Amino acid sequence: MQNFRFMSPTDFIFGKDTELQVGTEIQKYGKKVLFHYGGGHIKKNGLYDRIITSMDDSGIEYIELGGVKANPDVGLVREGIEICREEQVDFILAAGGGSVIDSAKAIAMGVSYERDVWDFFEGEAEIPEALPVGVILTIPATGSEASNTTVVTNSAEGHLKRAVSSDLLKPVFSIMNPELTYSLPAYQTAAGGVDIMSHVLERYFTLEPDCGFTDRLCEATLRTVIQCLPNVLKNPNDYAARAELMWTGTIAHNGILGVGRIEDWGSHMLGHEISALYDLTHGATLSIIIPQWMEYVYQTDLTRFVKYAVNVWQVEEDFYHPERTALEGMKRTKEYFRSVGMPVSLSEAGIGAEGIEEMAEKCTKYGAVGGFMKLEKEDCMTIYKNAR
Amino acid sequence: MQNFRFMSPTDFIFGKDTELQVGTEIQKYGKKVLFHYGGGHIKKNGLYDRIITSMDDSGIEYIELGGVKANPDVGLVREGIEICREEQVDFILAAGGGSVIDSAKAIAMGVSYERDVWDFFEGEAEIPEALPVGVILTIPATGSEASNTTVVTNSAEGHLKRAVSSDLLKPVFSIMNPELTYSLPAYQTAAGGVDIMSHVLERYFTLEPDCGFTDRLCEATLRTVIQCLPNVLKNPNDYAARAELMWTGTIAHNGILGVGRIEDWGSHMLGHEISALYDLTHGATLSIIIPQWMEYVYQTDLTRFVKYAVNVWQVEEDFYHPERTALEGMKRTKEYFRSVGMPVSLSEAGIGAEGIEEMAEKCTKYGAVGGFMKLEKEDCMTIYKNAR
Repeated sequence: MQNFRFMSPTDFIFGKDTELQVGTEIQKYGKKVLFHYGGGHIKKNGLYDRIITSMDDSGIEYIELGGVKANPDVGLVREGIEICREEQVDFILAAGGGSVIDSAKAIAMGVSYERDVWDFFEGEAEIPEALPVGVILTIPATGSEASNTTVVTNSAEGHLKRAVSSDLLKPVFSIMNPELTYSLPAYQTAAGGVDIMSHVLERYFTLEPDCGFTDRLCEATLRTVIQCLPNVLKNPNDYAARAELMWTGTIAHNGILGVGRIEDWGSHMLGHEISALYDLTHGATLSIIIPQWMEYVYQTDLTRFVKYAVNVWQVEEDFYHPERTALEGMKRTKEYFRSVGMPVSLSEAGIGAEGIEEMAEKCTKYGAVGGFMKLEKEDCMTIYKNAR
Repeated sequence: MQNFRFMSPTDFIFGKDTELQVGTEIQKYGKKVLFHYGGGHIKKNGLYDRIITSMDDSGIEYIELGGVKANPDVGLVREGIEICREEQVDFILAAGGGSVIDSAKAIAMGVSYERDVWDFFEGEAEIPEALPVGVILTIPATGSEASNTTVVTNSAEGHLKRAVSSDLLKPVFSIMNPELTYSLPAYQTAAGGVDIMSHVLERYFTLEPDCGFTDRLCEATLRTVIQCLPNVLKNPNDYAARAELMWTGTIAHNGILGVGRIEDWGSHMLGHEISALYDLTHGATLSIIIPQWMEYVYQTDLTRFVKYAVNVWQVEEDFYHPERTALEGMKRTKEYFRSVGMPVSLSEAGIGAEGIEEMAEKCTKYGAVGGFMKLEKEDCMTIYKNAR
């Protein structure tokens, strides 16, 4: 086990009706709020009204900025930063899924920075401070309600999709009511489930052998998603299954599953380029890439893929033919993604081969990617090609 | 799953040589430190000198208060409070195991309280504020490096052992170097392992059925302790196993394994009375009580005990005779405690039956104990008697 630091300062407020507390929670941190959200979904399902009422009851002043789209763009982030400066906002409330939260985090870190916020995403500046961000989560997926990361797209300057991490970006609170996820469309629910699994897999696949405890915690998280996701697709209003799924999303990405090891993140880098170029849902890029990534890298540490097959997918171990066991685990991964309605090839997502070189080029712009196996541009091209 | 709140704000700094950072970590929170520790162990193994050097290098002023004993007493806590007031201490550093940390937490909450600190333990006052506490952990066991709880004994006023919980008591940082545990005697290592397991078991045994994710995380933690503890007893300098064991102690008690459910804690209440009356090591009281507690309560929810047997102890499930499966899991628990050198009866710990009524009386002083099954005085007496 390698040396590590771990801290999860976010106050998770989980369960039925918890969104009604948002006003009193905000009072602990600020007085003037940028209320940030996406499209009309929260207005249709009544969440918007409940938030407004709670803030009014607590005497919180707020300015609204809706319109965040999937793969949130730096354009709206810049707009949010301007508003916060002009209106002297001291708190940002993000009500939505990962896109809204990531957009809010990017605004939060840009307000006190004199130059352009995109500098942070290009690695040209360190984050000095950030406004506190509070979350009301409506989509279990990205784990952004717990993570120190924001992922933003710059569509005007070449379809770049980049991530920035800093502990200053961890939300001060995250309100999580599983009932708010009842109305999620099946596709979005499944894409979220794949995203959650991917956050565990990016950590599980490591070259560090002596971290059996965290491996077990990863396996427990994966098995829970694997069990709950089909249940919620069948019964969207199954509270217990929705609640389990929502909480796995947080644990998958608050850092606890990555302690003491080098994580991978190659699949995310590969997937981000697909989203940037084709605006495909994040979870769909992962259901396409992960099976191909596995096939490409598994010989780097066959033992780990055997362990994955046995402990996560309950594959009966073929002790004399470990590769067969490993391949069976990989096969089940792909079949599972397909079974929950997610694409497992670029063509299934309506994407051709013409962008492959461009994506591989951008993916490795800052060097090889991936902690489990370093992927150069050629490796990325092969994985993309195998995913056609 | 029930509604819950979860937050783990402690900064865990884990790994080799991490104690050398203590001075720079303290600088973030205070300038004048009460350096609190136990007996001479940290002086013998060089930790004391490394801490002093690090604080000196960082320009930290400090006053020492050593002498904390197992089952820390409120007498020394009162002394620490006086020192902090007189010397205007603004930070407490606890270097040791759970007793030292608990003593430090009790001092931290008593400094600004005008009356006697024992009031908090009698439930006669709420904790208004507390000095920040930092930890250098030397014994993986109580989880106090992560928990919001302090357990203190009042030996002068009737051998009372009481716990107080408040989020204000969570340490601001906990430095955890597994190498510092190499020199722990086997008995203390094993007692610590039992304590860690008990913190998971107190949460695992719940009447809440819909919390499969957290159940899996509990099972993962238990299996890790079960595997690692014999390894470290055999090879005290096995870094990987010491590290795993140390980290299970934190996860077992930082709250993450108890979300969404009513926890039990009956065994702890029963065990505390044994410690208070006979000054027996906490872990030894648990290895005695837990098997008897299980036998006494398992029919309350047989299914959960079957799950425990199968998922934790890999008992082959006897589908037509679930009780046999459950009993086998309980049997293995007891055998395991014995196999790591811990007592499984009062007589093995040199304790007779004469204190049973007194212990049962004190244990239920504030009413029945236990969330899985409510134990009245008569129930406690039976469990103590069965443990003779």
